[in-house]
Amino acid sequence: MCRWMTYSGTPVLAEELLFRPVHSLIDQSLHSRLGATTTSGDGFGIGWYGEGPVPALFKSIEPAWNDENLREVTSQIRTSLLFAHVRASTGTPVQRSNCHPFRHGRWLWMHNGGITGFHDVKRDLVTAVDPELFPDIEGSTDSEVLFFLALTFGLAEDPPAAVERAVGLVEEVCDRHGIRHPVQMTVATSDGTAVWAFRYSSVGRSRSLYYSTDVATLKHTHPELPLLSMLGDTSRMIVSEPLRDLPGAWQEVPESRWGVVRADGEAEMHRFRPARAGRS
Amino acid sequence: MCRWMTYSGTPVLAEELLFRPVHSLIDQSLHSRLGATTTSGDGFGIGWYGEGPVPALFKSIEPAWNDENLREVTSQIRTSLLFAHVRASTGTPVQRSNCHPFRHGRWLWMHNGGITGFHDVKRDLVTAVDPELFPDIEGSTDSEVLFFLALTFGLAEDPPAAVERAVGLVEEVCDRHGIRHPVQMTVATSDGTAVWAFRYSSVGRSRSLYYSTDVATLKHTHPELPLLSMLGDTSRMIVSEPLRDLPGAWQEVPESRWGVVRADGEAEMHRFRPARAGRS
Amino acid sequence: MCRWMTYSGTPVLAEELLFRPVHSLIDQSLHSRLGATTTSGDGFGIGWYGEGPVPALFKSIEPAWNDENLREVTSQIRTSLLFAHVRASTGTPVQRSNCHPFRHGRWLWMHNGGITGFHDVKRDLVTAVDPELFPDIEGSTDSEVLFFLALTFGLAEDPPAAVERAVGLVEEVCDRHGIRHPVQMTVATSDGTAVWAFRYSSVGRSRSLYYSTDVATLKHTHPELPLLSMLGDTSRMIVSEPLRDLPGAWQEVPESRWGVVRADGEAEMHRFRPARAGRS
Amino acid sequence: MCRWMTYSGTPVLAEELLFRPVHSLIDQSLHSRLGATTTSGDGFGIGWYGEGPVPALFKSIEPAWNDENLREVTSQIRTSLLFAHVRASTGTPVQRSNCHPFRHGRWLWMHNGGITGFHDVKRDLVTAVDPELFPDIEGSTDSEVLFFLALTFGLAEDPPAAVERAVGLVEEVCDRHGIRHPVQMTVATSDGTAVWAFRYSSVGRSRSLYYSTDVATLKHTHPELPLLSMLGDTSRMIVSEPLRDLPGAWQEVPESRWGVVRADGEAEMHRFRPARAGRS
Repeated sequence: MCRWMTYSGTPVLAEELLFRPVHSLIDQSLHSRLGATTTSGDGFGIGWYGEGPVPALFKSIEPAWNDENLREVTSQIRTSLLFAHVRASTGTPVQRSNCHPFRHGRWLWMHNGGITGFHDVKRDLVTAVDPELFPDIEGSTDSEVLFFLALTFGLAEDPPAAVERAVGLVEEVCDRHGIRHPVQMTVATSDGTAVWAFRYSSVGRSRSLYYSTDVATLKHTHPELPLLSMLGDTSRMIVSEPLRDLPGAWQEVPESRWGVVRADGEAEMHRFRPARAGRS
Repeated sequence: MCRWMTYSGTPVLAEELLFRPVHSLIDQSLHSRLGATTTSGDGFGIGWYGEGPVPALFKSIEPAWNDENLREVTSQIRTSLLFAHVRASTGTPVQRSNCHPFRHGRWLWMHNGGITGFHDVKRDLVTAVDPELFPDIEGSTDSEVLFFLALTFGLAEDPPAAVERAVGLVEEVCDRHGIRHPVQMTVATSDGTAVWAFRYSSVGRSRSLYYSTDVATLKHTHPELPLLSMLGDTSRMIVSEPLRDLPGAWQEVPESRWGVVRADGEAEMHRFRPARAGRS
Repeated sequence: MCRWMTYSGTPVLAEELLFRPVHSLIDQSLHSRLGATTTSGDGFGIGWYGEGPVPALFKSIEPAWNDENLREVTSQIRTSLLFAHVRASTGTPVQRSNCHPFRHGRWLWMHNGGITGFHDVKRDLVTAVDPELFPDIEGSTDSEVLFFLALTFGLAEDPPAAVERAVGLVEEVCDRHGIRHPVQMTVATSDGTAVWAFRYSSVGRSRSLYYSTDVATLKHTHPELPLLSMLGDTSRMIVSEPLRDLPGAWQEVPESRWGVVRADGEAEMHRFRPARAGRS
Repeated sequence: MCRWMTYSGTPVLAEELLFRPVHSLIDQSLHSRLGATTTSGDGFGIGWYGEGPVPALFKSIEPAWNDENLREVTSQIRTSLLFAHVRASTGTPVQRSNCHPFRHGRWLWMHNGGITGFHDVKRDLVTAVDPELFPDIEGSTDSEVLFFLALTFGLAEDPPAAVERAVGLVEEVCDRHGIRHPVQMTVATSDGTAVWAFRYSSVGRSRSLYYSTDVATLKHTHPELPLLSMLGDTSRMIVSEPLRDLPGAWQEVPESRWGVVRADGEAEMHRFRPARAGRS
């Protein structure tokens, strides 16, 4: 199973987020409490907004826990918007172009889950991608195709609506192929100004997703944590699994929801409803 | 520029073919005399027919000249049919799934050259691939798509005709997109019983291709060479560049030709004519 | 924690040993039942005796479970003496020269365990290595230094005596540095004619080690297993953890023992006693 | 042959230094004009002073020209002191711990050249390293041993004197082994406040080394160059080969010299004289 986390808020060193917490994402890559499999050793990636107009990516096919460059680089990156992902492949090759996050222009995308029967529906799905976007697909994962479908359906204009149409299309195509329960996903996406997160599965039993309690409250409850003292009140994390056993720190996102965290820390959450409209 | 070689004939250790000759393929990967670029350091691969029904592959994204495993493995592989390829990427990622040779069932395929404007015609080309075969495309290269088009057009039944139709389709699609001189290729393919090689370019100035003079003649002219003494009279090599400066050893394949070498060492050569028939 | 296995006997394809068994070594690299850590994802290696005078090595820094080349190569290697090792680093870098098995001339060596306080005693240990051998040390692990000490003390002439002196020296040096319980090891070594295995720890609580029940007996008890039918009666495996839950198939090696399995399948086991003689 | 460059001065993005110049270090890694070999494809590394007390490293065993992470990371690193190195191995393995720059505490070190007969003198040289430092040697190169000898002889106190003693010791040891012309080197080292560079070979025919003309002069002569306009007048580069054909931009360092560039841009150059004093 894959795991991921997002951070937005006060600029901090990436290593503070990735390596310092007990039960950090890197620890999780070796051992998971909630995951179906216990290791996410099939590559990793981080994406962040820093210098220049597009986010930067650092991805590797080595296990995250072994990558010395990851430690070095994250000790130097100070960012206010970070995506991080550790991968457990379900069959597609372990290669850089299959590692999350994926990037298109200013957009980042990462995913935990999968499309059931992807091998059988892949052609129908990729031919539904905007022909202008099609040649930019670099890897061979279902996660990247889902990203390109969302881009096709207007991710840049209305992210929740675009993802609802993308998921709707996948469910429609899979229905035609007689595939049940086709979509399982927790997704995060960003354009650098806000972070959108989605928890959904066709069968209604989605993988876990949590967001952090607001920092002001946490500072009050846990004055002992050094990381908290670095963070301003608008800082927020979204994670597939809680980073540490901190009472009161993590709120579960309910089934079939999408949420957004904006730069000012404002957040909202809504029901997620796949839209079966095809490409009309 | 990529380079490749094929060997068929008496079983020999792969290292005899890959490392021993002066100006071997591995040497060529560092320095080329005929190539447009001087280094083919963007991954490599070998494929061979040995145990079991399908050929085996050993591919890596490291430069061939550095790969210690390549030296070890080729010191242990005794084969009567070997493909080897060193890659110089023209832009697609350096990842295992983009390394040649490609494999499908019993078939191997490797390519030096490219499809001009591939980014623009990629969608039209991959949607022309047999939908049954489509999900088996693993990488992102033009070379692999050409392979899958050839498979679509009957590579397993009539290899030269299938490649002529695949190239014809590429030229047709590129014509529609206003792309001139779309195809540049020297290709080798095999099903384990014979090796087919192709030299063709739309513009009529194809990259180099050579086949070895028959071994009986060579043994007579060059009694000093230890490798030759290991080879039976049916052994034959096809190479993008001559492996050593051996007078009389290499015959150039003329422009727009395909040839075949069979297990009994019999060989023939014919004119290559792209067939513009679409998928009728 | 590392895991390893040896096989000697009837020539079989390496994949039969590495991938086919339930709870194979490759499965163990992802999940272990007996190990202190659950993942051995920090590189792997296999060594085997085949063509030529010295054994061949195939090693990689990727996790074994992901390495497509490992699957390909082991589907083609037919060998009567195989070593395989999956690594869990305890701190030294994940690089090919730190992957087991190590090789020197005809000798292979692999190790599970460690030398306590190695950082502090490394200089004393490597300066005890025969100056002729010293420059051949390629990596930075305690396991390789132990191998070179054994070579220094006559591994080629009398393997058990050489290992007893090597371990004796390590314990002596560590004593001088005030390090308690310095050695923890299960070791396998071979020259291609026999396999020697060692189970020892200074504290007397060594990691697990098993050898397979003789094949004739197993065939009688388990006529249902296809692998067994391929094996002649001299075949024997030694493993850090049983490969499958086969009642009666695995015998535990007791504490502080060394054993040897010869080409004719004959095996013997003796007490292991570190010899504190220095280099006199 | 290896190549390297150092930059000190106005903070700039590393990509401006590594990728933008015509005939940049990355271009040089594929093709060299002055080098004995034309490819430096055996790994690379960069080191820079940024966040925190010690410099950061990013090193890889892939060729620099292929490494997508290198492009990404250098687009985000703004630094006032950068080391970069592309490696051409002369035999030691291509592994991260053999890639330059090497680091110890605040010190970086990189080297082009070699110690003749290193295999034969390695033991004598590493046993001359301070026993406290010895276990920190991570790789197997002559370059790293030279670094540790310099550290042993007081690199942190008086870099030129320490390097003169280290080189003196190497020449002394090699003399005893009957090795002629043992040292060939251009070396750069830094503690984050200044950059020291050395050009020396025992035979008196050292590899090339250049430093940049002062920026004020260059801006006057070449107002057309965008990189120059970003640089303050204290900026200075030292390179094994000129980065572009810019008349008047590069000054050759004469034979047997060391130089230093300080944070304020002040530079001086002196004769380099190996000091044969042993470890007295």
